[in-house]
Amino acid sequence: MNTIGKIFTFTGFGESHGAAIGGVIDGMPAGVKIDLEKVQHELDRRKPGQSAVTTARKESDTVEILSGLYEGMTTGCPIGFIIRNENQHSQDYGQLREAFRPSHADYTYTTKYGLRDHRGGGRSSARETATRVVAGAFARQALEQMGVTIAAYTSQVGEISVGESYKDLDLSLTESNPVRCPDPAKAEEMERLIMEVKADGDTIGGVVSCVISGLPAGVGDPVFGRLGARLADAMMSINASKGFEYGMGFAGVGSRGSEILDPFTVGEDGKIGVSANNSGGIQGGISNGADIYFRVAFKPVATLMQDITTVDCHGNEVLLKARGRHDPCVVPRAVPIVEAMAAIVILDAVLLNRAARI
Amino acid sequence: MNTIGKIFTFTGFGESHGAAIGGVIDGMPAGVKIDLEKVQHELDRRKPGQSAVTTARKESDTVEILSGLYEGMTTGCPIGFIIRNENQHSQDYGQLREAFRPSHADYTYTTKYGLRDHRGGGRSSARETATRVVAGAFARQALEQMGVTIAAYTSQVGEISVGESYKDLDLSLTESNPVRCPDPAKAEEMERLIMEVKADGDTIGGVVSCVISGLPAGVGDPVFGRLGARLADAMMSINASKGFEYGMGFAGVGSRGSEILDPFTVGEDGKIGVSANNSGGIQGGISNGADIYFRVAFKPVATLMQDITTVDCHGNEVLLKARGRHDPCVVPRAVPIVEAMAAIVILDAVLLNRAARI
Amino acid sequence: MNTIGKIFTFTGFGESHGAAIGGVIDGMPAGVKIDLEKVQHELDRRKPGQSAVTTARKESDTVEILSGLYEGMTTGCPIGFIIRNENQHSQDYGQLREAFRPSHADYTYTTKYGLRDHRGGGRSSARETATRVVAGAFARQALEQMGVTIAAYTSQVGEISVGESYKDLDLSLTESNPVRCPDPAKAEEMERLIMEVKADGDTIGGVVSCVISGLPAGVGDPVFGRLGARLADAMMSINASKGFEYGMGFAGVGSRGSEILDPFTVGEDGKIGVSANNSGGIQGGISNGADIYFRVAFKPVATLMQDITTVDCHGNEVLLKARGRHDPCVVPRAVPIVEAMAAIVILDAVLLNRAARI
Amino acid sequence: MNTIGKIFTFTGFGESHGAAIGGVIDGMPAGVKIDLEKVQHELDRRKPGQSAVTTARKESDTVEILSGLYEGMTTGCPIGFIIRNENQHSQDYGQLREAFRPSHADYTYTTKYGLRDHRGGGRSSARETATRVVAGAFARQALEQMGVTIAAYTSQVGEISVGESYKDLDLSLTESNPVRCPDPAKAEEMERLIMEVKADGDTIGGVVSCVISGLPAGVGDPVFGRLGARLADAMMSINASKGFEYGMGFAGVGSRGSEILDPFTVGEDGKIGVSANNSGGIQGGISNGADIYFRVAFKPVATLMQDITTVDCHGNEVLLKARGRHDPCVVPRAVPIVEAMAAIVILDAVLLNRAARI
Repeated sequence: MNTIGKIFTFTGFGESHGAAIGGVIDGMPAGVKIDLEKVQHELDRRKPGQSAVTTARKESDTVEILSGLYEGMTTGCPIGFIIRNENQHSQDYGQLREAFRPSHADYTYTTKYGLRDHRGGGRSSARETATRVVAGAFARQALEQMGVTIAAYTSQVGEISVGESYKDLDLSLTESNPVRCPDPAKAEEMERLIMEVKADGDTIGGVVSCVISGLPAGVGDPVFGRLGARLADAMMSINASKGFEYGMGFAGVGSRGSEILDPFTVGEDGKIGVSANNSGGIQGGISNGADIYFRVAFKPVATLMQDITTVDCHGNEVLLKARGRHDPCVVPRAVPIVEAMAAIVILDAVLLNRAARI
Repeated sequence: MNTIGKIFTFTGFGESHGAAIGGVIDGMPAGVKIDLEKVQHELDRRKPGQSAVTTARKESDTVEILSGLYEGMTTGCPIGFIIRNENQHSQDYGQLREAFRPSHADYTYTTKYGLRDHRGGGRSSARETATRVVAGAFARQALEQMGVTIAAYTSQVGEISVGESYKDLDLSLTESNPVRCPDPAKAEEMERLIMEVKADGDTIGGVVSCVISGLPAGVGDPVFGRLGARLADAMMSINASKGFEYGMGFAGVGSRGSEILDPFTVGEDGKIGVSANNSGGIQGGISNGADIYFRVAFKPVATLMQDITTVDCHGNEVLLKARGRHDPCVVPRAVPIVEAMAAIVILDAVLLNRAARI
Repeated sequence: MNTIGKIFTFTGFGESHGAAIGGVIDGMPAGVKIDLEKVQHELDRRKPGQSAVTTARKESDTVEILSGLYEGMTTGCPIGFIIRNENQHSQDYGQLREAFRPSHADYTYTTKYGLRDHRGGGRSSARETATRVVAGAFARQALEQMGVTIAAYTSQVGEISVGESYKDLDLSLTESNPVRCPDPAKAEEMERLIMEVKADGDTIGGVVSCVISGLPAGVGDPVFGRLGARLADAMMSINASKGFEYGMGFAGVGSRGSEILDPFTVGEDGKIGVSANNSGGIQGGISNGADIYFRVAFKPVATLMQDITTVDCHGNEVLLKARGRHDPCVVPRAVPIVEAMAAIVILDAVLLNRAARI
Repeated sequence: MNTIGKIFTFTGFGESHGAAIGGVIDGMPAGVKIDLEKVQHELDRRKPGQSAVTTARKESDTVEILSGLYEGMTTGCPIGFIIRNENQHSQDYGQLREAFRPSHADYTYTTKYGLRDHRGGGRSSARETATRVVAGAFARQALEQMGVTIAAYTSQVGEISVGESYKDLDLSLTESNPVRCPDPAKAEEMERLIMEVKADGDTIGGVVSCVISGLPAGVGDPVFGRLGARLADAMMSINASKGFEYGMGFAGVGSRGSEILDPFTVGEDGKIGVSANNSGGIQGGISNGADIYFRVAFKPVATLMQDITTVDCHGNEVLLKARGRHDPCVVPRAVPIVEAMAAIVILDAVLLNRAARI
């Protein structure tokens, strides 16, 4: 299953070390003026080699749009695109042909399919997330036209956490540092921690937080298309993610119901709003007009710069020497991916919602 | 969207105070001997009025199977079923016709659809989850034939938490107490807390943990059908759920990669396994043969036994008097729902997996 | 697969001799005032026993709506419904437990599923089409509000054919005779033929033609959701259908391109139309505002009132004695089914089309 | 909607005059050895410029596979591919920017999407069918491994028709002539007719027949996934198709039921078969082990080499001068497309069928 979405859909393809990765964006509404530089900009935010806290592997990740645009506008026809792979050191992976790296997908892919492209993790590599970023960049430009904005940021690396609500942060600072944390002091701490971990040949996890603003009330589809469920699905499809929560999340279970009600208010314009937002902008699976905010947990990835003893497909013990170039912490690069997946989900829900009434 | 699943699908219908709720189970493989008493037993675990910690509302929730079974066996044809609604106090809800209860779906449904069935929350009521339990009970009987078992339990109520891993618990004790916590001492504490909260006319949240055992390696579908993502989607579609995590989850972000690797082992039989399971049984979206375990956070529900001031659809302030009969803590009744949704997801993935190889 | 549609969907269940048949209509837009008598009226047009040209089997086919309506309006929530089975002579079917009737689905169901409910054909019986008629009746009421009408009629029975285009017929006469042919003279001929065939214990086929009027230009979805393809799919899902054509159809292959162009015209109001309609109202898979018309071929059904020699599941020859009560010609009762399936397809396409532009 | 299929799916993209066309094949089972020359061979059968009876436009239509293969084997991962467009005479299409050609999709696309890529018909051009041929060639190689073969041929051009059943033809002769008719005498007549029509700047329609052999009994999915319905859907999604029939088709409506029964037989090996095949290999939507055969009607396409008067988007009359290079009869080139679509449908049904029983 390499397709996500119902009306606005994305179908991706491609392995880490094949000729190219790419995909098809379908259901993109016609009449959206597309700024291709913005699309490339999102890819650049995700690409490897952009800073010292990410992998040193360098790829230009240049997207080529093959269809669905005419004179800069979407036509309603599917948008096919590719990103050529480059800078492939396939020889780095020779020893992985038969070995199963612990906590990777080598064993599970082999068990499921009977064979696998072992080079760089093949399809299980996070490389394919670059194609999602392209699809998300298209969705985002449609959403921006409707006044919907999406902003993700690094809120935790290891035990270093930005305690505040997103409301107390200046999200315009997210891109001001390589970890993409809008709290500059915490960002420095996080950066130091990542560099330490990197020096040890180790990795560290973290949390990406995300806020969706400007979405009108009434979007989302009960009961099996709830916004919360669809966002969870999309986020948990990102490599290395292990948890999702929105609104009060796990922390809310300790509260009393009377403490976490979101009272309705009536503005001077007669518009109904809420004076608290423990619900995270979603009630009954449908947006209530308040900000939607959620958090995604990313584990420390399993690709270490350390020698590892494991087993191969014959059941023999093998020693894997540390090689390749890897991310000590994937969280900073996950930020644009979280935004992209959110945009894909939200645009789909917005379009679907047009069928809610006669 | 009232359908979940790809091959094994469930489509539900019904409101809290309509004539009946029900659904269609499609893609159920032929040749499964169905024990209808087990199906009813699952419904009984979910039904209201079963203990002092749940709502006092009483409904027998008797399922009537209308198709798809012949002489006790599934035929491969769709299984239609209904559960008649009864014990409806629609007059309890008169004041809700125009009022929007805070942190409920009244406002969002009205905004989306332009009208709503306000009685008892209509479609947004958790009543519909009874139909999921029926679908799950069918899936479960198919899975049991394959050696797959699913066990959920209450692991937290308010701040009272079962600290141990599921491995250190005796899950056969789950049904021995009304909160469905396999740790009898903690269960008592939880029960006391719920009774306290109930006495205050308040509510409290909690966490349901779940373990899936016996699933062979190789099940699950990258990249948009990852087991973790599909479980997240299914769990976050349950009323009042606010968070999902599997394996090390949110807690794992503080670890180093070197601490959380799951080393492969080779058994005497030559079978590959893992000696640790931080991954939660899923790698690259595919099962690795180890137990799958996850946690779902449920908020304290918003239906309090307290008078509440809110607004109505005209923007006027209204006072809602406490009435009806409601759950002070939905977590104990969520346990069979979590199991049902897990069974639906896993059976679908197992069936889908049969197409993985030529 | 018992679901059809993408946004407006119908999921059916039920066998000929189970407790009930029924289904779930999902994606029905909110705010449609539903006349339940019209729904029942469509069922009455399909039900057995309505005239001498149909089976003598009598069933009241009363639909019970279980959800999704509130005070006579659709709420946007799924509409569950059932039709209880009655007048079942299961004992009529004892000899069919092991025998495979020629040109029926007995053998194929058994081969696929390993077992089958043999009573009355089980799920393969055309009885399930009653549930489609209910779904179609809902879709139709939504379409009527948009000015879209659908009219089917019997255009051929055996070799007796209504030669004229639908434009030369008075479709208000369709219901004036039991064969549902708007040409009264031909209707009489057809009726005589059916009675003759019936007297022989035999059956005869025919063609249902259908016209969809009032659909605006721009509806339909290239390339795998073309209106023509979706109508074909829906019509070929009806029991006993063997062919589908729209516009010029098979007859058009003998023409030259220059003979069958549909010239565009500009009305006094500046509106673009066509002065011929060989395309059948669909160009590039999308409606062009002209009438959509198509034809569906129904074979003579295989249930004869004659003794038949065939084989059973053990490979033994068996003699099946003529019994039961069957239709000598299914075409008159197929007319409301064709209309229902057309309504289901068109409403779905109309709703989907709302996502075509930003 | 640019995706077809449920488990084995194809998602296409691309316009006539964009950078490239292409697509993603998903759900391809792992472990199929792929002969890429066979894939290219299928494309060559479809490509323009291959003979005097097709368009003189020349394109090499070289497919580039970008993913999903490893060392010549399918890996279970999605297969992305592109075919670069070349030999584009965009200037040929300047006059079509605002004009609506009669019986083309210019008007309907513009009405639906508000704008269109007018060059060469954009997405509505049959050029996109090349991508389906690639997907079909992959499906075919999987099916061949299972003993399933698919053979289509031209059975009618204009009024010249191959009267015989496919059983009386030597289908190995199909590729021996440019019209792809296995009856050499008729092929010559057809070729002459096409050359005549071409000389007139006109076009002519025809029929493609297709036979699927070797498919075991039990494949296909009632009630909304019937093989006949899915084939109809797939065939009616091909440009210029106007009709579909299988088995006895439209001609069968004139028969009596007693004349068209397909008697079951028991072979010496105890295997059940049929001694006649009016059903066309499908009963109750499921294969019965006999050959599946069907026919697809193609209209004479609307692109003439004649000047045409029509209207533009402003409602003004315009004269379109004959230009470009077009097919006088698309039927010969439709043969490989019909085969490809059949392969896509059948492989999907075969894979889906694996979930039929526990």
